[in-house]
Amino acid sequence: MSLRRLGLALGLALGLGISTVAAAPAIGAPLQGDVARYRAANEQAIARQLADMIAIESVAANPAGLRKQADMLMAALGARGFAARLLNGKGGPPLVYGELKTPGAKRTVVFYAHYDGQPVEPAQWTSPPFVPVMRSVNGAPVEWQAGAQKLDPEWRLFGRAASDDKAAIAAFLTAFDAIKASRRRPSVNIKVVWEGEEEAGSPHLNDVLIANKALLAGDLWLIGDGPVHQSRRPLISFGARGVTAVEMIVFGPARALHSGHYGNWAPNPAVMAAGLVAAMRDDDGNILIPGFSDDVRAVTAAEAAAIAALPPVEADLKRDLALGRSEGSEGLTASTMRPALNVRGISTGNTGASAANAIAAQARISIDFRLVPGQTPDGVRRKVEAFLTGRGWTITDAAPDLAARAAHPRLIRLDWEGGYPALRADMTTPAARAVIAAASAAAGQPVAVLPMMGGSVPIYMFEQVFGVPIIGLPIANHDNNQHAANENLRLQNLWDGIDAYAAMIGGLDW
Amino acid sequence: MSLRRLGLALGLALGLGISTVAAAPAIGAPLQGDVARYRAANEQAIARQLADMIAIESVAANPAGLRKQADMLMAALGARGFAARLLNGKGGPPLVYGELKTPGAKRTVVFYAHYDGQPVEPAQWTSPPFVPVMRSVNGAPVEWQAGAQKLDPEWRLFGRAASDDKAAIAAFLTAFDAIKASRRRPSVNIKVVWEGEEEAGSPHLNDVLIANKALLAGDLWLIGDGPVHQSRRPLISFGARGVTAVEMIVFGPARALHSGHYGNWAPNPAVMAAGLVAAMRDDDGNILIPGFSDDVRAVTAAEAAAIAALPPVEADLKRDLALGRSEGSEGLTASTMRPALNVRGISTGNTGASAANAIAAQARISIDFRLVPGQTPDGVRRKVEAFLTGRGWTITDAAPDLAARAAHPRLIRLDWEGGYPALRADMTTPAARAVIAAASAAAGQPVAVLPMMGGSVPIYMFEQVFGVPIIGLPIANHDNNQHAANENLRLQNLWDGIDAYAAMIGGLDW
Repeated sequence: MSLRRLGLALGLALGLGISTVAAAPAIGAPLQGDVARYRAANEQAIARQLADMIAIESVAANPAGLRKQADMLMAALGARGFAARLLNGKGGPPLVYGELKTPGAKRTVVFYAHYDGQPVEPAQWTSPPFVPVMRSVNGAPVEWQAGAQKLDPEWRLFGRAASDDKAAIAAFLTAFDAIKASRRRPSVNIKVVWEGEEEAGSPHLNDVLIANKALLAGDLWLIGDGPVHQSRRPLISFGARGVTAVEMIVFGPARALHSGHYGNWAPNPAVMAAGLVAAMRDDDGNILIPGFSDDVRAVTAAEAAAIAALPPVEADLKRDLALGRSEGSEGLTASTMRPALNVRGISTGNTGASAANAIAAQARISIDFRLVPGQTPDGVRRKVEAFLTGRGWTITDAAPDLAARAAHPRLIRLDWEGGYPALRADMTTPAARAVIAAASAAAGQPVAVLPMMGGSVPIYMFEQVFGVPIIGLPIANHDNNQHAANENLRLQNLWDGIDAYAAMIGGLDW
Repeated sequence: MSLRRLGLALGLALGLGISTVAAAPAIGAPLQGDVARYRAANEQAIARQLADMIAIESVAANPAGLRKQADMLMAALGARGFAARLLNGKGGPPLVYGELKTPGAKRTVVFYAHYDGQPVEPAQWTSPPFVPVMRSVNGAPVEWQAGAQKLDPEWRLFGRAASDDKAAIAAFLTAFDAIKASRRRPSVNIKVVWEGEEEAGSPHLNDVLIANKALLAGDLWLIGDGPVHQSRRPLISFGARGVTAVEMIVFGPARALHSGHYGNWAPNPAVMAAGLVAAMRDDDGNILIPGFSDDVRAVTAAEAAAIAALPPVEADLKRDLALGRSEGSEGLTASTMRPALNVRGISTGNTGASAANAIAAQARISIDFRLVPGQTPDGVRRKVEAFLTGRGWTITDAAPDLAARAAHPRLIRLDWEGGYPALRADMTTPAARAVIAAASAAAGQPVAVLPMMGGSVPIYMFEQVFGVPIIGLPIANHDNNQHAANENLRLQNLWDGIDAYAAMIGGLDW
């Protein structure tokens, strides 16, 4: 967001802009009416604020882009009266911290989000990932900044991190502006924690939390990340799967070989990689690594009941995603309560027009694991490595020389990412009940309640360090292409998200 | 080859160059001595002739490059007194045909080679694939065209098609020049057939052969393609495996999905592809497709004896290729008498630095099959498709729409290349004995005799159409990176190849 835009946003917040909200709220008037009016009057500026953030290349491969985004968020907080600062770990991008006390408030709520996005493969995108483009439902770009127009809520803003996770930051800032513009006050003390390495597995976050434990203390953490329910119903979640990942390299001949002259004799790393994947996981999602799920904590009856109460979405999703089947038969949400082994990529040899009749020199397998309560990244690593060793693989963590390759019949290089465990928290605390009530009031309907998101955010750290309720407040549309090309945010989800954040800032009480 | 260079080569051929050979051969003087002297006196020009051909981008993706190469070969033949013309099929690059009668000769030998190269992935090459570079044994580029110097026979000329298959053409031309320069005459009538689509599976060759059956008739076809024995001993072969290939696309969700939110529910095409590969072939080279090898013609006792007589190379190859094991235990040559299923590439999702936590929308598997006598491309196709259907796959040969993807639990697109069957010919004909004798005389040692090369050339067509002996005369070094990046030709192999071709042009008698 440029400083000019920041000024506009602040101007809106102070009632100096085109806002049409009343000078002061009527006693007892519902918060959501004021927020809705503010949003309706400022849709273009609100969307532009998010578009400006998308244009910043804040991905792990671009530390300068991460820093630029952090600096802009510092400015955005400062312009709104927050005491803001950067918290640095030993390496990694800074964590943006902001604090605003509310006189008389008895509770402090910490709002978490992340300002980094997933890596990009620009060739896979319809338009460049850091050039925000608004598209209508048929995918055509639309001009949305000319004149004063109402934006179609089914339009979507495309760009890396649009939904994951800059939408949460944009919704928070706008919700705060709406409350200020309607002459209201927050109902709680506010702390903001926006990290910049979530998509890289948050390797420095824990240290920063521990080093700043008193500074970051609060009564409740609200985790602004992830999508709402596939039914498009707003959603409150009580946990997230953990994550770890590994890059495997299977070695074949020192150089690619003619498949005719050596086919059947020189080991083919593509085939070895395929066999390895097939031995680790079947195509119904079952993990075949011995003991992989031994430590898994079972879902409780209350959690199972919450899952059963969710609106069914599978038939619509299958049609939308062109799926001829699903893995397993237990339904989407129930299936994500189990650990997952996801092959995120295999690269070996060449395919398509550049396929050559050769045996490749190596094969890469890239895997992310989704963890559930009871599991740890170290435990997953141990089980995978024991599995490999038991099948005759020799494991190395560095590039082997040719002598090492010749010495081992099955040599595999493993590069592990760190990762973190899952959290599935208590859904019955007073804070939990208050959040569900406020979110339902903002949505005008009972929100969906999800025991644990399938996706991962490092919320286990917050519970470990702070021991207070940790609750997920996702706002993105489920069909946002998160972690893939053509990531996008549906405008109605931004509008709903602003309502939800306004409820948490201005309507939370327990 | 430029016309200037052609002129030089012709000059050499006519004794006008720097050649030091005698004005006329002594009666009964061995051919190989004259050829060796000619070569020693002209090494730079001979290597340059090949380098000039490498610089022409004659690959399937570049029809203009193929045509340019064909035109230059026409000029090279014309300059040497051949009646030369282009034979065109219904599409595809032209076949270069040349003919030179030898007064009094009773036999006609047809020399086959191909002037097209495998596709390239320039990023995988140390230096650009169409810029010829001479390298010493340690891989460093060497200046070899300055001054008059003897070339180290262990140096190698790098570039696409250097060994596969322009080396054969260069060796033929130089051998012819050497014979002319030493005032000798060919011992046979010569026909030249140089095709331009061998690496694309020769889809038009059969039609051209049939349409020109009388023109191309001869008593013996010599197939100049493939590598010599891994012991570096010159080699005569009596067949080649056939080939076909297929590109498979396995479909997952319509768009890439967040692996956390959908992992365990949305089918992962990378896992489906891996399972499919693992079900088709194990990592010892065994093909698991039911009935795949039912039609295979067994190796005869004579063929098995010839294989057993080959010098052992496995231990050296394993060290050279950094292999910790081989597929199976029967040895290299015996293993290539079986059909092979080679996975030449798998591409799905992303790996390495661009890996994202997503379920990919599709997975590509590219496979080439090596066929042995008794098998046909159509038979392989039927067995693969029956196997897939039996496992619940629905096969399509075009890009399916989303409705088709949603309608089928396991949908796979197959794009088959044509291919052709194998040939394993009689090793005991008079022509076969004459070729073995002449080649052994040229090599100064008994040549290796191979019943069938592991690689593929469409020689079955020649036998089908012409019904005469078809014999392989490979010259490339086995470690030439054929079909891969950094393809190269070892100079000693070019020198040996010139000797072998000279023996076939000037020393063959039966």
